[in-house]
Amino acid sequence: MLLYEDAEFYIQTQESEIPWLLIFTKEPYKELGDMPKELRKRLWDIYDIVEQELKDFYKPTKINMASFANMLPRVHIHVMARFKEDSYFPNPMWGEKVREASLVLPDEDLFHKRLLLALHREARKEGLL
Amino acid sequence: MLLYEDAEFYIQTQESEIPWLLIFTKEPYKELGDMPKELRKRLWDIYDIVEQELKDFYKPTKINMASFANMLPRVHIHVMARFKEDSYFPNPMWGEKVREASLVLPDEDLFHKRLLLALHREARKEGLL
Repeated sequence: MLLYEDAEFYIQTQESEIPWLLIFTKEPYKELGDMPKELRKRLWDIYDIVEQELKDFYKPTKINMASFANMLPRVHIHVMARFKEDSYFPNPMWGEKVREASLVLPDEDLFHKRLLLALHREARKEGLL
Repeated sequence: MLLYEDAEFYIQTQESEIPWLLIFTKEPYKELGDMPKELRKRLWDIYDIVEQELKDFYKPTKINMASFANMLPRVHIHVMARFKEDSYFPNPMWGEKVREASLVLPDEDLFHKRLLLALHREARKEGLL
């Protein structure tokens, strides 16, 4: 689901038992190093906001982050809140499932609202919204 | 194997069929967002060098990057050169193995020498070596 969009980036939610977001650049790049420096700086600013909001809201055991894009070579960043009782922990979400989890997490809609507020604040500061 | 070290970071090689490096901060942090901004800026400068040298030397199909640290919650960045004929491609290296690969890659020692040259150049510029 498309959650957020500005002039340079958009953020999708990924269907999963855990909170999982995908940060995309609007302009496609194959590798992180192919992105202009200024855009990469902002990518990590946006990542910071996503990480911080995930930590504040869900109090996860650990944040996981990854950039693969092997099927479609277009840079995007996975940001995942991991919990010691989720189905794959301590493995990456792409690894072996180790249990049948039934996580009880706080209201996702509320998290999305809080995240959007923080992202809009940053984008307005950057003059991009 | 410890490949590189300066006042702030060290880089280890990971035993694998593919070129795989791990960038660690000397000071331990649980999450990326816990690192001081300046140190994170340098982390991505170092990541850039590793990515660029991997691309120049191995001409990989794709670079993969990840930060998990679920077992030991201490930030470090995995950087992997992926090839369409490696054992897991297009899955992440933590995913399902899809073939028995026998990659023929150029001399790893030569890659390490080139990478060290580039890293030393950056660290001297930063006054950290």
